[in-house]
Amino acid sequence: MLFTFELDTPKQGLVDITKEVEAAVRESGVYEGICVIFCPHTTASITITENVDPELKADFIMGMDSTFPGLKNYRHTGGNADAHIKSSISGTGETLIVTKGKPLLGQWQGIYFCEFDGKRKRQFFVKVLGE
Amino acid sequence: MLFTFELDTPKQGLVDITKEVEAAVRESGVYEGICVIFCPHTTASITITENVDPELKADFIMGMDSTFPGLKNYRHTGGNADAHIKSSISGTGETLIVTKGKPLLGQWQGIYFCEFDGKRKRQFFVKVLGE
Amino acid sequence: MLFTFELDTPKQGLVDITKEVEAAVRESGVYEGICVIFCPHTTASITITENVDPELKADFIMGMDSTFPGLKNYRHTGGNADAHIKSSISGTGETLIVTKGKPLLGQWQGIYFCEFDGKRKRQFFVKVLGE
Repeated sequence: MLFTFELDTPKQGLVDITKEVEAAVRESGVYEGICVIFCPHTTASITITENVDPELKADFIMGMDSTFPGLKNYRHTGGNADAHIKSSISGTGETLIVTKGKPLLGQWQGIYFCEFDGKRKRQFFVKVLGE
Repeated sequence: MLFTFELDTPKQGLVDITKEVEAAVRESGVYEGICVIFCPHTTASITITENVDPELKADFIMGMDSTFPGLKNYRHTGGNADAHIKSSISGTGETLIVTKGKPLLGQWQGIYFCEFDGKRKRQFFVKVLGE
Repeated sequence: MLFTFELDTPKQGLVDITKEVEAAVRESGVYEGICVIFCPHTTASITITENVDPELKADFIMGMDSTFPGLKNYRHTGGNADAHIKSSISGTGETLIVTKGKPLLGQWQGIYFCEFDGKRKRQFFVKVLGE
């Protein structure tokens, strides 16, 4: 089964999508298998990080800005080459293990939609595959 | 089904492999499922990025060179530790959702083989799994 | 089938888990399919890199430290925001193709558990899915 979700994103930032992914797995009826989360945008991504400290989400964006700054000699006409690179490197998808009807995550892990060039209307997909 | 593709790469750069992945999915006959793309090399990778502006491919390489420079104190004898790190971090594989007989991609997304230490003869694999 | 592995990690560093993943695939009895490796921790990751030169593992950590330094203005109370970002960006999972009863790897590729904030007792999961 293929699930589509829509969301509104901030200028830059991480949006917690763990509950949406858990709902898709539940609705699929798959008890043991995998799920693939996919972001169809080139200036956004999917990542997994700590789900407790809200400051960490700001640190993530600060770290990405520091690591992939907007270089003066980038030639992409959109002016957002850095956002494209952040998207590629942090990755447009994640594959999770499904067990006992839920995506297998560590106690402190959450699934996040990362916006690098918003704010925008965005979407992401979840595919669940049974064993 | 497992598909093997061969390609010739530049010294550094992104090679569009979207058509090859689409052909593998088509030939597999899988209509709904997933596909896994895998690069068996340690100084190359697979990524997904914008498929329109050719300048962006050069920006990607420039951004990677700037982010992961060849540090003086790297000790790897090959002299290409930076290329190995670029490969690991941008990732040796991608997992895509397959729907209606095609890999599910956003309008502006393409699949790219990234060469960080060419030019060389390279290969990559595509595995398609039905629901 | 779902396999759980435990390991003791160094302060920072790469631990080769290729043999464990190969054993899981073998024990699963799956001959053609995929396997998903997943790390349930937010300051560790899974990556694929060269399996020959031990110096390269130290270079990898040095490169990650240089690329994602501990910025002064990070606000995460744990003081390890950089380790969380390294984990997210290098990725908490890998999906491999399984063929002829083994994970498909290039001649020089190994699978590594990356510790960015140890030393600790850690675990990782392997799920194998047949065609």
